[in-house]
Amino acid sequence: MHKRICIMGSTGSIGRQTIEVIKEHPEKFQVTSLAVMKSIDELEEQIHILKPKKVVVFDKEKAEILAKRITTKTKILWGMDGLLEIAADDDTDIVLTSVVGSIGLLPTLKAIEAGKDIALANKETLVVAGDLVMKAAAKMGVRIIPVDSEHSAIFQALNGEQTSHLSKIILTASGGPFKDWTKDAIRHATAKDALKHPNWSMGKKISIDSATLMNKGLEVIEARWLFGVDLDKIEVVVHPQSIIHSMIELRDHSIIAQLGVPDMKLPIQYALSYPDRIRGNIPRLDFKEVTSLTFMEPDLERFPCLSLAYEALVAGGTMPCVLNGANEVLVSYYLNGEIGFYDIPKYIEKAMSAHRVLEYKTVEELLEIDQWVRRWIQSQIK
Amino acid sequence: MHKRICIMGSTGSIGRQTIEVIKEHPEKFQVTSLAVMKSIDELEEQIHILKPKKVVVFDKEKAEILAKRITTKTKILWGMDGLLEIAADDDTDIVLTSVVGSIGLLPTLKAIEAGKDIALANKETLVVAGDLVMKAAAKMGVRIIPVDSEHSAIFQALNGEQTSHLSKIILTASGGPFKDWTKDAIRHATAKDALKHPNWSMGKKISIDSATLMNKGLEVIEARWLFGVDLDKIEVVVHPQSIIHSMIELRDHSIIAQLGVPDMKLPIQYALSYPDRIRGNIPRLDFKEVTSLTFMEPDLERFPCLSLAYEALVAGGTMPCVLNGANEVLVSYYLNGEIGFYDIPKYIEKAMSAHRVLEYKTVEELLEIDQWVRRWIQSQIK
Repeated sequence: MHKRICIMGSTGSIGRQTIEVIKEHPEKFQVTSLAVMKSIDELEEQIHILKPKKVVVFDKEKAEILAKRITTKTKILWGMDGLLEIAADDDTDIVLTSVVGSIGLLPTLKAIEAGKDIALANKETLVVAGDLVMKAAAKMGVRIIPVDSEHSAIFQALNGEQTSHLSKIILTASGGPFKDWTKDAIRHATAKDALKHPNWSMGKKISIDSATLMNKGLEVIEARWLFGVDLDKIEVVVHPQSIIHSMIELRDHSIIAQLGVPDMKLPIQYALSYPDRIRGNIPRLDFKEVTSLTFMEPDLERFPCLSLAYEALVAGGTMPCVLNGANEVLVSYYLNGEIGFYDIPKYIEKAMSAHRVLEYKTVEELLEIDQWVRRWIQSQIK
Repeated sequence: MHKRICIMGSTGSIGRQTIEVIKEHPEKFQVTSLAVMKSIDELEEQIHILKPKKVVVFDKEKAEILAKRITTKTKILWGMDGLLEIAADDDTDIVLTSVVGSIGLLPTLKAIEAGKDIALANKETLVVAGDLVMKAAAKMGVRIIPVDSEHSAIFQALNGEQTSHLSKIILTASGGPFKDWTKDAIRHATAKDALKHPNWSMGKKISIDSATLMNKGLEVIEARWLFGVDLDKIEVVVHPQSIIHSMIELRDHSIIAQLGVPDMKLPIQYALSYPDRIRGNIPRLDFKEVTSLTFMEPDLERFPCLSLAYEALVAGGTMPCVLNGANEVLVSYYLNGEIGFYDIPKYIEKAMSAHRVLEYKTVEELLEIDQWVRRWIQSQIK
């Protein structure tokens, strides 16, 4: 039987690689729906190849343009309503969420409530509302299978082990493009510099997050919720080769690690095939070519975003939502050349200081705070 | 409830560390019987501390001396009959076999037939009679839990995975004390040089095997039987730091590795606690102190014993028994300074050439060949 898949964010880096994996296994996987923000040209090609039942273009105008072009039976939807419809579609078994930012939160929750398994490539969902999302998943008995290479590594390493035996999560970090830059050089780094990631080919937002180490900070928060461990059990280690994708330490001090070539198709394929493992088109790691794996501590002085993420998690409640919303807006300003590299942590810290932590109960409360922090950052910068 | 343990080889390196582990967990483990070759002084101390019901001294004279000294209720046995009696004792749940050499074969088989789980630290058992032993274990539904750090790593990495998904075993090797020596320097190396192992504290026989890389060759054969994989799926990688204790590659080319400080107490404790994992006295691996992990191919030119092990496995049948028996005798000659380092592979190869492979059916056939090859080597050297 086919696994029927909804891809939210099908024209992003993860979305495209997910489609490659699906095309390599037509006997196992089938696309039922796709969603994009506004890239209708690429979506149109995907429609012709994959023949989904429904597609969503978040931007209404673009959706209308596409609707005029498409002659197949594919139904075209738009906006958040569209995302919520495909998230809960009867014909879908698993929803892969690879949209960028907190926009993924509501559709992910909707999919969980409809009993769909989640292949999670949108880390902001757990950063903003990890408690809520994991409780909903537990209640519905659905699986949240991580697509992030680090969390997939931890998920794989934990396979067969009791979570109660977990004594530490060791998240590896490549260190990003500025690993060996001085603080002064980083201060003047442009978005173009930051987009040159040494090991992984990724989207723009995550590339900047990787350069600031905010990406690792978000992953720490994601790991906290995904694996139900306290912050003091999560350690970040810089490992520039990105061969060890992350590790777990068990209570007897045995460490289990997952390794491989740095290729997102592996965690994507595993999230789709889980609990099965299938042959695929992912290159083998050849130890004849791996001469040395190195490790070092992250430098919180040059990369303060990682500390801010820890602080947000310690503060708890709505604070990670503030961290994330501020970061999303600031990254877009940085990408546009409107602010400098260290303005990102500077204004995140200001936003966090300006916010009084609340204990949230509903996703609507979080979305309000998300909106507040975005406006607040805007008011500071412009 | 306590796990009741029989330790065969209680005064060897593994035996002593097993006793340490047991003493650290008096609420979980209990010793019912101990066996030694002839070290009665140390055994006497162990009897006072652990109060086993039975002990075996293989050497009859030494057993009689001990019997005169012991005033406790501990029953003193001797010889192979003694080993077979404690292997099958009703009061025992698990038999840890850490005797050196093929002498472990009969007691291990006896324990399996009596339905005992086996914590296997005697690799020669599987090298000589892997097919027979694994079939007996499958028939009786008993577990063979490896104590070798490499096989324990593979066993742990495989936890939760389907064996059918296994595409490769990657056995790591420290490279031994002569890793960086020239062939000419190795040619003149003494047993004293060979006993200085860089990472592991081990017994004499295994230290020499480690210097010749025969140890890795025996482990390849052991892995073949323990995990039911073909030879072409077993790769040896030299990894001088002994931090990654071995790895498995799964069919999607994901690699799972087990890491830790080089301390045999970890695999010993895991073999005893399995399927549980318990806190223990094993140091944590600290990645702040691990600066670099390196890998290289084994040099078969300087270490021909590894090739011989592969050849014996390819030849199949009784050939690994010949390899192992010849190696055991030659290592003892080398330890006594009677032959040179490269005489070990030289005479193993001669013995293998002199042997016509047979398909064995019983352990008695194997023991005859074991005896033959020992006599044959003796006739060549003396």
